[in-house]
Amino acid sequence: MALRGGLPTEAGFVGVEGPRLVEEALQSGCPIAAVLFSESGDRHRDRLAPLLHPDQIAFPILRTTDHLFEGLADTEHPQGVAALVKPRTVTLDDLLSAPASACAPLLVVLAGVQDPGNVGTILRTAAAFGATGAIAAASGQSGTASPYSPKALRASAGATLHLPVLAGMSLAILLTQLRIANVHALASSVHDTLGVHLPAQSGFSPSLLGDAVSPLLLPWQVDWCQPIALLVGNEGAGLSEEIVRSADARIRIPMASGVESLNAAAAAAVLFYEAARQRSTLQAKREGTP
Amino acid sequence: MALRGGLPTEAGFVGVEGPRLVEEALQSGCPIAAVLFSESGDRHRDRLAPLLHPDQIAFPILRTTDHLFEGLADTEHPQGVAALVKPRTVTLDDLLSAPASACAPLLVVLAGVQDPGNVGTILRTAAAFGATGAIAAASGQSGTASPYSPKALRASAGATLHLPVLAGMSLAILLTQLRIANVHALASSVHDTLGVHLPAQSGFSPSLLGDAVSPLLLPWQVDWCQPIALLVGNEGAGLSEEIVRSADARIRIPMASGVESLNAAAAAAVLFYEAARQRSTLQAKREGTP
Repeated sequence: MALRGGLPTEAGFVGVEGPRLVEEALQSGCPIAAVLFSESGDRHRDRLAPLLHPDQIAFPILRTTDHLFEGLADTEHPQGVAALVKPRTVTLDDLLSAPASACAPLLVVLAGVQDPGNVGTILRTAAAFGATGAIAAASGQSGTASPYSPKALRASAGATLHLPVLAGMSLAILLTQLRIANVHALASSVHDTLGVHLPAQSGFSPSLLGDAVSPLLLPWQVDWCQPIALLVGNEGAGLSEEIVRSADARIRIPMASGVESLNAAAAAAVLFYEAARQRSTLQAKREGTP
Repeated sequence: MALRGGLPTEAGFVGVEGPRLVEEALQSGCPIAAVLFSESGDRHRDRLAPLLHPDQIAFPILRTTDHLFEGLADTEHPQGVAALVKPRTVTLDDLLSAPASACAPLLVVLAGVQDPGNVGTILRTAAAFGATGAIAAASGQSGTASPYSPKALRASAGATLHLPVLAGMSLAILLTQLRIANVHALASSVHDTLGVHLPAQSGFSPSLLGDAVSPLLLPWQVDWCQPIALLVGNEGAGLSEEIVRSADARIRIPMASGVESLNAAAAAAVLFYEAARQRSTLQAKREGTP
């Protein structure tokens, strides 16, 4: 049982540590291979007891010494409880069709986000604002940190186990599939200029499609009730120019002069909030509430 | 010259380290006591040269050995350049009157934010979205981390030197002053319920004043074009119940079920974005642009 490293086992299980993440794993409905307590981790048994009733679980509860647990654990101060959990498997087709609860798919595409903490925080934020799924994509040299690494799982506060996540897809193939499925690919960036110097279009282009150069929109100029895939690029370099050009639109978060950029997680929070705001307003209209 | 600790010197100077923050300090227009280069820090001289022209500066440029610099520096891997800078002094009256560039004051009040990184990130985010000032307040046992600590300054990416910041004010006095000045105090929190179980009001209350229990609003139900002071509480405990009750309104960031909270910086980003969106739309209307 290796918790380190964050790579799934051959059977697709990943390790999660600490009472909060183990609780999330047990509540997620994802398959569990085992739960492991160290001697000092026994203090968390009460909190987890309702989820570990012997009649209702099909996995073993293992015990180990503190010393052995420390050897397995990824964290510096392990809390003595861990689980092996298999994140839900999801296909691109699943992600491209709208779930019953949402008006249209709202996907986050991590395209070269290299800090595991940012990967986790972005997934947590996306889930909080009603994203329907996430894709961790690789493009050229720049991959995305695994959403299943211990640091990413911790930063996600368990959201990675609740949100449908598809990992390891090629960005070029994904962009083609999004176009076929009529899901609008939006290029976001932490930089005011998206790191790419295309001429800014003046005024507001209501259509996200059919422009030779993808339009540059403010967040509130985007119709977030459409099927959307939001592309989030590398922390430093942003999205590659090729990706930005093949997106249906580019989004510029307006910023006061003198401020270079937001951090990646704050930028994602702002954009998913705007999506939630518009979707919530639309839903309220449909339900006839003011 | 003590860079450690983040407490201003008797004359009110704080130390900033690294070429980026030193550059920000030199550009901020704030008084500088000295700039210090170590031997290996000399590689940053070219970048800073335009700001250090001997004819135009009234402060000394000091040199030291790498060994001495390491003893002074707060960071583990110091970059060999530092400055002593005096952040702009600001009074509450300054903050309560609208600057010419903004439609009304938009203040962020840090009320018990204990992580210096969060303090810095929140100031950076507030500045990015056009906040007109910040107040680091203390209430009861819970103080706010100094905005001038090395970690907070780094996380702010220099915004602390550009945004007018008032530190060390009592929260109780501040709330009274805000009421007198007709600045609306809004209680925000990273928790969906704000950590306080007041009955949620149904519907939208267009007036933020005159309610016995402060109304609970979604971010887009707040009129952010008014004079606003946004109260941001402790990362874990949020704002105290007393503070929440004396605020003019409470803001609940809507979140999908199963997600406990956003991190403090992401929540601040969302709320200041909403303010920027409304203020930008108002300004566009005034200017007659669509």
